[in-house]
Amino acid sequence: MHEKMAEAMEKAILTIKAIWKRAREYGETRRPRWPLIILRTPKGWTGPKEVEEKMIENSFRSHQVPVMIDDNHIENLGVLETWLRSYHPEELFDDDGHVLPDIKEQTPNGYRRMGANPHANGGLLLKNLRTPDFTEFGVDVKEHGHVLAQDMMELGKYVSEVVRLNENNKNFRIFGPDEALSNRLNYVFDSTNRQWECDILNTDEYLNNSGRVIDSYLSEHLCEGWLEGYLLTGRHGFFHCYEAFIRVVDSMASQHAKWLKVCNQLPWRADIASLNYILTSHIWQQDHNGFTHQDPGFLNHLITKKADITRIYLPPDANCLLSCFDHCIKSRNYINAIVASKHPSFQWLSMDEAVKHCTLGIGVWDWASNDKGEEPDIVMACCGDTPTLETLAAVSILHRNFPDLKIRTINVVDLMRLQSNSEHPHGLDDLSYDMLFTKDKPIIFNFHGYPSVIHELIHRRHNKNIHVHGYIEEGTITTPFDMRVQNHIDRYHLVMDALKYLDCLGNRGGSLYQKCLDRLVEHKEYIKDYGMDIEEVRNWKWYDIDKDEEII
Amino acid sequence: MHEKMAEAMEKAILTIKAIWKRAREYGETRRPRWPLIILRTPKGWTGPKEVEEKMIENSFRSHQVPVMIDDNHIENLGVLETWLRSYHPEELFDDDGHVLPDIKEQTPNGYRRMGANPHANGGLLLKNLRTPDFTEFGVDVKEHGHVLAQDMMELGKYVSEVVRLNENNKNFRIFGPDEALSNRLNYVFDSTNRQWECDILNTDEYLNNSGRVIDSYLSEHLCEGWLEGYLLTGRHGFFHCYEAFIRVVDSMASQHAKWLKVCNQLPWRADIASLNYILTSHIWQQDHNGFTHQDPGFLNHLITKKADITRIYLPPDANCLLSCFDHCIKSRNYINAIVASKHPSFQWLSMDEAVKHCTLGIGVWDWASNDKGEEPDIVMACCGDTPTLETLAAVSILHRNFPDLKIRTINVVDLMRLQSNSEHPHGLDDLSYDMLFTKDKPIIFNFHGYPSVIHELIHRRHNKNIHVHGYIEEGTITTPFDMRVQNHIDRYHLVMDALKYLDCLGNRGGSLYQKCLDRLVEHKEYIKDYGMDIEEVRNWKWYDIDKDEEII
Repeated sequence: MHEKMAEAMEKAILTIKAIWKRAREYGETRRPRWPLIILRTPKGWTGPKEVEEKMIENSFRSHQVPVMIDDNHIENLGVLETWLRSYHPEELFDDDGHVLPDIKEQTPNGYRRMGANPHANGGLLLKNLRTPDFTEFGVDVKEHGHVLAQDMMELGKYVSEVVRLNENNKNFRIFGPDEALSNRLNYVFDSTNRQWECDILNTDEYLNNSGRVIDSYLSEHLCEGWLEGYLLTGRHGFFHCYEAFIRVVDSMASQHAKWLKVCNQLPWRADIASLNYILTSHIWQQDHNGFTHQDPGFLNHLITKKADITRIYLPPDANCLLSCFDHCIKSRNYINAIVASKHPSFQWLSMDEAVKHCTLGIGVWDWASNDKGEEPDIVMACCGDTPTLETLAAVSILHRNFPDLKIRTINVVDLMRLQSNSEHPHGLDDLSYDMLFTKDKPIIFNFHGYPSVIHELIHRRHNKNIHVHGYIEEGTITTPFDMRVQNHIDRYHLVMDALKYLDCLGNRGGSLYQKCLDRLVEHKEYIKDYGMDIEEVRNWKWYDIDKDEEII
Repeated sequence: MHEKMAEAMEKAILTIKAIWKRAREYGETRRPRWPLIILRTPKGWTGPKEVEEKMIENSFRSHQVPVMIDDNHIENLGVLETWLRSYHPEELFDDDGHVLPDIKEQTPNGYRRMGANPHANGGLLLKNLRTPDFTEFGVDVKEHGHVLAQDMMELGKYVSEVVRLNENNKNFRIFGPDEALSNRLNYVFDSTNRQWECDILNTDEYLNNSGRVIDSYLSEHLCEGWLEGYLLTGRHGFFHCYEAFIRVVDSMASQHAKWLKVCNQLPWRADIASLNYILTSHIWQQDHNGFTHQDPGFLNHLITKKADITRIYLPPDANCLLSCFDHCIKSRNYINAIVASKHPSFQWLSMDEAVKHCTLGIGVWDWASNDKGEEPDIVMACCGDTPTLETLAAVSILHRNFPDLKIRTINVVDLMRLQSNSEHPHGLDDLSYDMLFTKDKPIIFNFHGYPSVIHELIHRRHNKNIHVHGYIEEGTITTPFDMRVQNHIDRYHLVMDALKYLDCLGNRGGSLYQKCLDRLVEHKEYIKDYGMDIEEVRNWKWYDIDKDEEII
């Protein structure tokens, strides 16, 4: 058998060398048929042949424990001895049990050892990714929330430049299940193509055999597996995915998290680039896909993993997305998930503001707050692009109706800031958390995903007067705003919830509460009649409430 | 094309009839080659051929929107009109837009309509499952925690009888990824076999072509898909799985939950049997598999789904497992998950006690409590077989050291009892919850899975003095007790945590606290030297603390 194997290996290696030669010397670059060795052996080969008159080797019984030996099966000791002696230990070990020198000589040394081979310990091959200055790719935001842009489209311009800068190193790839265009990475195709090894038709676009975009299979399993392999062999990349369908690889992400956790305990394991997910085409933007395309639970999944492994970012606009992505793509040994918007949406922060905000990961938006130097009456918090829009709209309604109400608006980019610093390295300490969220004022928290994520992260915090809105498994093919209404993350539900907990208003909140209820009925009637959202929502625009401006 | 299709259908139907005939009249029962029709069409067939000088039909551009029409593409209106007119609407509709009578005549009626076909609306075909009296399959428990049994092995006896009772109806199946024996359903093979359509070798066991056990593929995807199809066509069954690997089908479970939620809103959809999962070979029993086999997060996943869909049970022993399983297998329109033990373990409740306990879903175990009629000093709560064992061991340590300490021990079988009744139909109302858990006494909660599940479920409850132990992503191939130590769900960590919050002890807890620390060091030393757990743990046995018995 050893001879047969050596022969097969020899043949395979010669075939590989011949393919190389044909490619290098004669330019034959069409996809070759690489050799493949198929080794078919009996199950439990070389194990015990028969035990208790039943066939073991070459049968299902050789799985796990081929021969049971315990107090009730002591007679099997002989079978065990015969079996183990069949490997001729006397030819392998000396009388003291040490491996014989000529055997030892045959084991590989140095980088030929399996764990030390740089292709297995891929961090040894890792070259820093070359990245441009992301701030040069920013959207020009002069006023908060007045210009529209597509966050993913903007990111694509930056990614395209990353591809260009690392073209020579060939160590950066983009993985996705046939969704690079759907996920609005269009600009990436300015600098590269989809890798494609088969025939190319003249009606095809964006295909060639040296593209950096791996986009050819609608399989999240393949994308995840390829990216993991790519990272483990010392390269860089990211996986962009419809948010709901990343759940397909839950178990693969788990196993990678376990791998990273254990590697962190092994000093000889070199750092590898982080596993980066961009979750886009997300829950709040499924106009024609509906209920089946709504599952933000990958975040619930990730927060159960070790705190030194997982990082989660929910940038509210393009400039924040650029900042988060630039941070993630340079990091090591993490699993980073970024939830990003792809549809035209309001841009809140200038690049300078975005850099500050993302560096801190969480912060008060002073231009959307009017509690400066004073006790706030309420904290309006938001995390995720759509919740941010709705929270700001709710803030503007509250402010218009109760100009004296002191509102503090907080936005969260780095989700793990919410957890205690005793549990997560990004976590705020309790005093810092209380500085932001107060010890007792009502917090209306509007979240991108399942409310359970927030409940879990803040369960140790003092201020229990928090009321979380998020996805509650409602939805269908409907208008964008109706999706929010069905899950109570819309401005009217937020305002109604705020009014419930604003004791300082006494009973003055009643009429606004009723107005919100009325508006929700009008909304349902309107979308039934017109198939689009009410004007008040479609035409809504932000005004900075900290300025003495005319209220729009 | 229609003629070609009709021809292919005709040929396929004749082939099927010929196969039936050969089987029924000549007894040919070997797996036949069923006909398969492959229809290969151009992508976007019959759509626009060319738009803006680019090929659409038969190219990737026919995906989603083949021709854009909006303010900037108004010139494409002509393309749209030509395309839609190509279907000859004048031959299909009258001048008022109604379908012409001879067209209407061709549509199917009654049960031939797609949604009304009983194979599509499978609940119409559902026959009640015949089940034996599960109480007759119980383990005889005369004293709490003195007899050992394997919960899954006991359940197998009951399931075997279910197979027998429904043999004629052929409407019950057991699905698993080649793990029926590993998951200890051994007794099922007393009444049936694995279904197997290929050749059977004379060394094979438990195979035939009419078995009710579908166990032939190590693929959770296949098991889940088969079971879903089986239920949707009006049958009954369950899927048993290694707990960690059920994560492979997270996204499939999500979609089934969404399906059930929407069906509940459609009055014409008949009820179907619940999708039942048994998660066994679980996190706390991975002696030789280790870290990769540890992921209890499917419970986190399920609790994000609609409350009227999901039910989760963690029976602490065999009698409770029987009661839970019997309940689940008869239920309709739910997703039930049962976490079950397969290793020899202590049996806590007699069948009478188990029926009561499981009917309530949560309760004080009076035989493990000594607060009767008095204010408890502490609540020791547990959920899951291994946490229950460790909590009882912690209770016995606390009781031995502080006999006057009033301890209340609570066990949770039906996890959703913890959630508020405003959120889940099984949830306890706040007053009932407070009756069990008190409003302010410390609760040391020992949980089978990630602590986040408990944090989420109880986030609205009054008593915030709760300290949850559970899986914190630590583990490797080690002793059973060390797995618990690494994750702090062991008796010593529980006692230490109890001492931290037992203000009534003043500083008297200090010496026991130190003893626990010492014992944990001894444990680490011992398992390193002997490869097994310390005697105190191996030989531990329960004694009822509500009796005036000699303390063991």
